[in-house]
Amino acid sequence: MFPNEPILSVEGNIIECQLVESILLNILNFESLIATKAYRIKHIAGEKLFADFGLRRAQDFGSIHASRAACIGGASSTSNTLAGKIYDIPVSGTMAHSWVQSFDSELEAFRAFAETNPDNTILLVDTYDTLKSGVPNAITISHEMAARGEKLKAIRLDSGDLAYLSKKARKQLDDAGLHDVQILASNQLNEYVIKTLLLDQNAAIDGFGIGTEMITGKSDAALDGVYKLTEIDGEPKMKFSENIEKITLPGKKQLVRYFDEEGKFYRDGIFLQDENPKEIDTIYHRIYPEKNTEVSKFKFELIREKVVEQGNVLLQHKSPVEIHKYLISRAALLPDEHKRFISPHLYKVGISNKLMATRNALTQKLRTLH
Amino acid sequence: MFPNEPILSVEGNIIECQLVESILLNILNFESLIATKAYRIKHIAGEKLFADFGLRRAQDFGSIHASRAACIGGASSTSNTLAGKIYDIPVSGTMAHSWVQSFDSELEAFRAFAETNPDNTILLVDTYDTLKSGVPNAITISHEMAARGEKLKAIRLDSGDLAYLSKKARKQLDDAGLHDVQILASNQLNEYVIKTLLLDQNAAIDGFGIGTEMITGKSDAALDGVYKLTEIDGEPKMKFSENIEKITLPGKKQLVRYFDEEGKFYRDGIFLQDENPKEIDTIYHRIYPEKNTEVSKFKFELIREKVVEQGNVLLQHKSPVEIHKYLISRAALLPDEHKRFISPHLYKVGISNKLMATRNALTQKLRTLH
Repeated sequence: MFPNEPILSVEGNIIECQLVESILLNILNFESLIATKAYRIKHIAGEKLFADFGLRRAQDFGSIHASRAACIGGASSTSNTLAGKIYDIPVSGTMAHSWVQSFDSELEAFRAFAETNPDNTILLVDTYDTLKSGVPNAITISHEMAARGEKLKAIRLDSGDLAYLSKKARKQLDDAGLHDVQILASNQLNEYVIKTLLLDQNAAIDGFGIGTEMITGKSDAALDGVYKLTEIDGEPKMKFSENIEKITLPGKKQLVRYFDEEGKFYRDGIFLQDENPKEIDTIYHRIYPEKNTEVSKFKFELIREKVVEQGNVLLQHKSPVEIHKYLISRAALLPDEHKRFISPHLYKVGISNKLMATRNALTQKLRTLH
Repeated sequence: MFPNEPILSVEGNIIECQLVESILLNILNFESLIATKAYRIKHIAGEKLFADFGLRRAQDFGSIHASRAACIGGASSTSNTLAGKIYDIPVSGTMAHSWVQSFDSELEAFRAFAETNPDNTILLVDTYDTLKSGVPNAITISHEMAARGEKLKAIRLDSGDLAYLSKKARKQLDDAGLHDVQILASNQLNEYVIKTLLLDQNAAIDGFGIGTEMITGKSDAALDGVYKLTEIDGEPKMKFSENIEKITLPGKKQLVRYFDEEGKFYRDGIFLQDENPKEIDTIYHRIYPEKNTEVSKFKFELIREKVVEQGNVLLQHKSPVEIHKYLISRAALLPDEHKRFISPHLYKVGISNKLMATRNALTQKLRTLH
């Protein structure tokens, strides 16, 4: 979703179109935000998996769709079992601190957990003291499991300096010959923290549990998509505004994406519905037409499709995991400079000459009328 | 809700207590956040009313409870009609830009609206040009309504500089003799913007519609309440942590609030359940016991009550409006220095000597065990 794009068109009588406004904006704004946040994490985490741990800090019942969106963006699993059931998302989780606390000692707690979950033993090692107690006890349990032909899967760090602790814990595990035991980390993670952990600090972390920051889209708690009337009874309509970026584009429109010589996303074009994209030579900046791009030599595709007609959903149902695969295939086509966290290159969107002329004529007409 | 306070205790078998963890945290964290945000706005807006306009930027189905929480915090109404219906919250709203756009002219749109809603005519004046078109047309309609014995209630500004436009619009209305027509404002408002509009700029605004920033708690998208095991089979339990502020207080506890000589909130005290608050002389800082307060001379009250027992809800049902009244009566007792937006004075919470001794003994025991 790029600035000012008509990503969705709704046609119908005005009452019906008005009734769906709030629910469409609510769903598209919120789920796009969370999926984008999760994809930003995925983009940094790469092959390392991360689980959605957000339920306790999610927004009430919004938690169900938030977990779906997190999975679409890149979470490989969720701790939200209801979302997992409804949307066929893998569920995952480790033990809670309360499990460890409910036994007389950490070692007993680990032992009971390993006996109950021999195929998925992940031990939370920070209830008392990560390096002096948690990891040594996990090593003891790992040896006991090995004697039974079982395997300790991972340990989880949930507090303290994750870079420091993960490297120390890795050394303790390696020294005990446990090179296969993974180290998972959680605690206020986001894409920025993960980037510095992995790239600047070489943290020995194999996977992440991510809660608050992903499930709330922190620090951008809202995506500001809007829903505007653009045509009525064949007449193009527009809204002015004291804020120039809030002035809308009139008329029924189509959205076209151009690809550069390497097949990457290059520009998007917004045209009136009755224009033939093949006949468009140049697209213009919405506000400064002096800035424009010759596009006739580029391949393009139409990037919207009809999803509902006469109340019937035309889209084929896809699971969040399938949608995630599609997202990955498309995100690979977005050049890296647009994915930079600091001062990302702005993706450019232009409009056709005819759309500009329609807007300008309507502007003149409205200036006279009111 | 102040830092480190046991605002909620849950007792039961460990499986049941564990099952309710996520839903309790989810609801308490999210709704407390939104209600607090709304109260911060109420604190600044004073007698000026504000409506919850957040549905389109709310978090999916979380929108229903978010609107309830906004009303508890101070919103006088909501545009979320479903929340209004479920929780008996007054609903309100004005026209959309699409209403104005769907007519050939703004004047016709205003006229049709006034004829349909003569008792609640609020005209949105920024679709084309606030001062040149919107306000003059509203004035025309107001005179037409007056001729029929009706009254224009208000105009709404939704873009541009709200301080500048409101003062200019106020002058236009006053010059037309329309001193009673109110000016409402919306567009990315929060407590900071409202504070500068009202206090620094003397904006001529009589009420607000507040969406995104209130309904998402921006810029604090999450409240970090946690749920920790503190006792099992009569044995106090605690969790250490690499982060000292995450170390928990063991045992079943009670929460006491002290009042100063003026009857304002002064300190909160956390004691073991079996202590008699009347016998507590001094409360201690959780981490630095050298910092302590003599409390025996202050009046106090117990600030928790039993809300569920054996599956039965013991609380009397209250509407959001009734809960808001209770909030206002309590918030009046919190000294102003704690309500400052910049560097607020920290509200102090102390623990009893016996609770500290229990924690210290358990710390020693656990250090030996693990």
